[in-house]
Amino acid sequence: MRSTMNELPLAISRLVEYGRTQHADSTVKTWTGEGYRSATFAEVADRASQLAHALKDLGVTGDDRVATFMFNNQEHLEAYLAVPSMGAVLHTLNIRLFAEQLNFIANHAADKVVIVDAALVPLFTPLLPELHTVKHVIVTGPGGSDLAAPGVMVHRYDDLLAGQPTTYDWPAIVETDAAAMCYTSGTTGDPKGVVYSHRSIWLHSLQLGQSNSFALSEHDSVLAVVPQFHAMSWGVPYAAFLMGYSLIMPDRFLQAAPLAKMIEVLRPTFAAAVPTIWNDLFGFLSANGGDVSSLREVVVGGSACPPSLMRDFYDKYGIRIIHAWGMTETSPLGSVARPPAGLSEEAAWPYRYSQGRLPAAVEARLVGPDGSIVAWDGASVGELEVRGPWITASYYLADDPDKFEGDWLRTGDVGSITPNGYLNLTDRAKDVIKSGGEWISSVDLENHLMAHPQVKEASVVGVPDEKWGERPLATVVLQEGATADVAELRDFLAGRVAKWQVPERWAVIDAVPKTSVGKFDKKLIRSRYAAGELQVVTPK
Amino acid sequence: MRSTMNELPLAISRLVEYGRTQHADSTVKTWTGEGYRSATFAEVADRASQLAHALKDLGVTGDDRVATFMFNNQEHLEAYLAVPSMGAVLHTLNIRLFAEQLNFIANHAADKVVIVDAALVPLFTPLLPELHTVKHVIVTGPGGSDLAAPGVMVHRYDDLLAGQPTTYDWPAIVETDAAAMCYTSGTTGDPKGVVYSHRSIWLHSLQLGQSNSFALSEHDSVLAVVPQFHAMSWGVPYAAFLMGYSLIMPDRFLQAAPLAKMIEVLRPTFAAAVPTIWNDLFGFLSANGGDVSSLREVVVGGSACPPSLMRDFYDKYGIRIIHAWGMTETSPLGSVARPPAGLSEEAAWPYRYSQGRLPAAVEARLVGPDGSIVAWDGASVGELEVRGPWITASYYLADDPDKFEGDWLRTGDVGSITPNGYLNLTDRAKDVIKSGGEWISSVDLENHLMAHPQVKEASVVGVPDEKWGERPLATVVLQEGATADVAELRDFLAGRVAKWQVPERWAVIDAVPKTSVGKFDKKLIRSRYAAGELQVVTPK
Repeated sequence: MRSTMNELPLAISRLVEYGRTQHADSTVKTWTGEGYRSATFAEVADRASQLAHALKDLGVTGDDRVATFMFNNQEHLEAYLAVPSMGAVLHTLNIRLFAEQLNFIANHAADKVVIVDAALVPLFTPLLPELHTVKHVIVTGPGGSDLAAPGVMVHRYDDLLAGQPTTYDWPAIVETDAAAMCYTSGTTGDPKGVVYSHRSIWLHSLQLGQSNSFALSEHDSVLAVVPQFHAMSWGVPYAAFLMGYSLIMPDRFLQAAPLAKMIEVLRPTFAAAVPTIWNDLFGFLSANGGDVSSLREVVVGGSACPPSLMRDFYDKYGIRIIHAWGMTETSPLGSVARPPAGLSEEAAWPYRYSQGRLPAAVEARLVGPDGSIVAWDGASVGELEVRGPWITASYYLADDPDKFEGDWLRTGDVGSITPNGYLNLTDRAKDVIKSGGEWISSVDLENHLMAHPQVKEASVVGVPDEKWGERPLATVVLQEGATADVAELRDFLAGRVAKWQVPERWAVIDAVPKTSVGKFDKKLIRSRYAAGELQVVTPK
Repeated sequence: MRSTMNELPLAISRLVEYGRTQHADSTVKTWTGEGYRSATFAEVADRASQLAHALKDLGVTGDDRVATFMFNNQEHLEAYLAVPSMGAVLHTLNIRLFAEQLNFIANHAADKVVIVDAALVPLFTPLLPELHTVKHVIVTGPGGSDLAAPGVMVHRYDDLLAGQPTTYDWPAIVETDAAAMCYTSGTTGDPKGVVYSHRSIWLHSLQLGQSNSFALSEHDSVLAVVPQFHAMSWGVPYAAFLMGYSLIMPDRFLQAAPLAKMIEVLRPTFAAAVPTIWNDLFGFLSANGGDVSSLREVVVGGSACPPSLMRDFYDKYGIRIIHAWGMTETSPLGSVARPPAGLSEEAAWPYRYSQGRLPAAVEARLVGPDGSIVAWDGASVGELEVRGPWITASYYLADDPDKFEGDWLRTGDVGSITPNGYLNLTDRAKDVIKSGGEWISSVDLENHLMAHPQVKEASVVGVPDEKWGERPLATVVLQEGATADVAELRDFLAGRVAKWQVPERWAVIDAVPKTSVGKFDKKLIRSRYAAGELQVVTPK
């Protein structure tokens, strides 16, 4: 029996038109270094329509890919809205990848057009000759006049938009059709493409407004630090047009000083970024002061947030750091750590430290080392597998059988789940330290170390050990002026974890190396250790 | 280009399993008159699985219809979950309809099984012989042993469930398939069936958790006064399993006294009911006192809420009455009146009085008397038409061309929309008073009259007038001990609306007649007027 409900698709063009009218006065403000420029959602929708006309004039048709090589700014938002609405596919290029990866990705996706921020032209110029499918480059802002490659036309963004109609008769789409794509820089093999649909983006956007999740509404103003080329900025730009909160875009000003300044001036109520951003900001605020009182909550994801940082932000500024988990393959939400009802402030903290609870649309299971399903008892450990309407079930034109088990995505994250569904991820499957048949969580050791007042950062990796197979190596960055030595840190740790988990190998380093998305680069630490580049000591 | 996203359907069985685990400890409490009985969501999910097995054993298969003739209680919730999850179709019968309507509806839907509350057996008994497709009747609780009809088997609910497995291997469904149905008692012709899909119920449920909408989360406890047979209790039961808030079910105790008692004892944070319920409750509390401090917000819909009632509840109890609009055909949300950001308390009130803003998934347009589209200028008036994934686009096995314009639903509601999308509905299309080529809003006059301290209720209808075609007739229920006469009320009104809108015809009555769903029965008032049954006066 068929229902009588209207089967209108969930289309991104509907978000554009909704934001244009119902939230016409909401704004996107883009930081310019000393101040900001601002546009209303009505203006952005007008310009997105103009961009769609311009792209059509350039020959964009069907499911052609339109790539972006951009920071978070108004023009990037316009591309987010225009490209899928006209039926084409938005491809956000990660500007922080190596040239070879970017070339591979743009050629694999067969990008036809690339929109490039003027400030990124120097980074983009050497790439262009290797982008074999690109026919048009569109530069936002001044600069880039020397961009050239055979068969490629270069345009100015504002020139293309000028004079175009401010409305567009958006085509009908099938909601499972491609809307946007994003490549993951996997640990093995070539990068893999994740292709989001109109449906998945819509359903995911609704998640950001759920009271159990980010709880965003039009009363909010959201600082989107997490890049638009990183898992669609966690859905923040699309959900803005769905629910009408204003956006604050940092453009290229991602350091602690300008972020503190834009928070003070533009007064966001909510923000989203990886833990290292918050760590840097906290350090900056402690040293320089600043007014962050407008923020009610900030969400962190991308990697586990040190509990000490969550406590510090709350104790000093009254700001809740909301822990969330996700990945490019999961759109990216994922779980959000809001404690259950009825707990005292202290009893709630362990739930805040956890990765939180998955929403109903994301099914989860834990698979143990032997392939069996692990119980949700809060203790048993397995690899997290998920599936749902905004979870990828394959990669674009690429096989990766290790990543899927039927239609379940193998996340590569290892941890436990409580009976009421709270995830506690302890490690990446590849970072778990396998010591004599036992698993040691590298993240657990890092969190304990970073709780030491003289430790700025700490990263723990597994290194080969003749007797145990693998043992932990602790690399530590000390606070300026620190007096502690590794023996003190070893004793500090020994009071907090089981004795057999305490590392024998220690190295004090200047900074923990980071990946392009700001995570600890454990692969690099391991290879530096293997190459003998670290000064490793074993405290007495 | 196809996306790589998982195309898992949005299935109600997923809600059951999610609530069973992630919100195992949330509860449904059913009022029993003096106290309550309680079950956890885990227990309810177990019993829903048992009910599905029992129904399967009775021969329920495919898209068979399983009807309910029940109040709001735990067993009704179990039927909500079990029936669609097993692939069958839940049909909620409105116990307040006339016997002929109920017979028509159950036969038209071809109900195979009916679950009946023991307390409703006396009402159900005379219906049964006319229900030609019913094979099984299941009675919850004691009583009903004398129920009998040829070819019909009568069962006890608890007996059927006893010993059944507490899990069920829910079948795969197509998300646009029928999940539940509800008939509207239209003003003309036979009742019409609206058939909700798994998809529409899922998307609609997500709406209740949106911060812009009901903002419900697991921290809430929701008193569902609006009947489960009335537009699926506004989605409250399904969304509970999606987001984990506890439910309080009033069963048959819908009068102000027991409602006040259950609020005091069970301390809901949120409640949903039609305006007359709140009006009665306010009156009861004023006379008898009571503790309603647990409530943060109550949502009203079904008919327009008098602004005076919204003010009174806030001024006296600090409770926000949230105005919402919807209908059986719209699942039912519809719009929710949360004021835009940045307004003062006083400036926000007109937005609270409005029907609010439609969510992005519900497209709207206003169609004027001449069929042209009316501008959203906050003044121009037209009939509201809507469409979207949880809006009906047809009726079940029935044509009603007057209700649809393409895939747009003609709501029969008349009003204006502000530029930023706030609905101000002034009347039903059939209740607008057409006086000399101008429209007079009956609801507007009622609201002004009900703001008079000595008026308890007021209903205004259009009656034939030789000179003007139609003129308003005001029927008024005075507060106990009131000293005002209609001349005073006429003068009161004259100071608030245009002179030509002030009624000449007045009648003081004992109570405004209500329809089965608690709305003013204007049809009955008009027919009483036509029959000369009202004592009509024209004040000097």
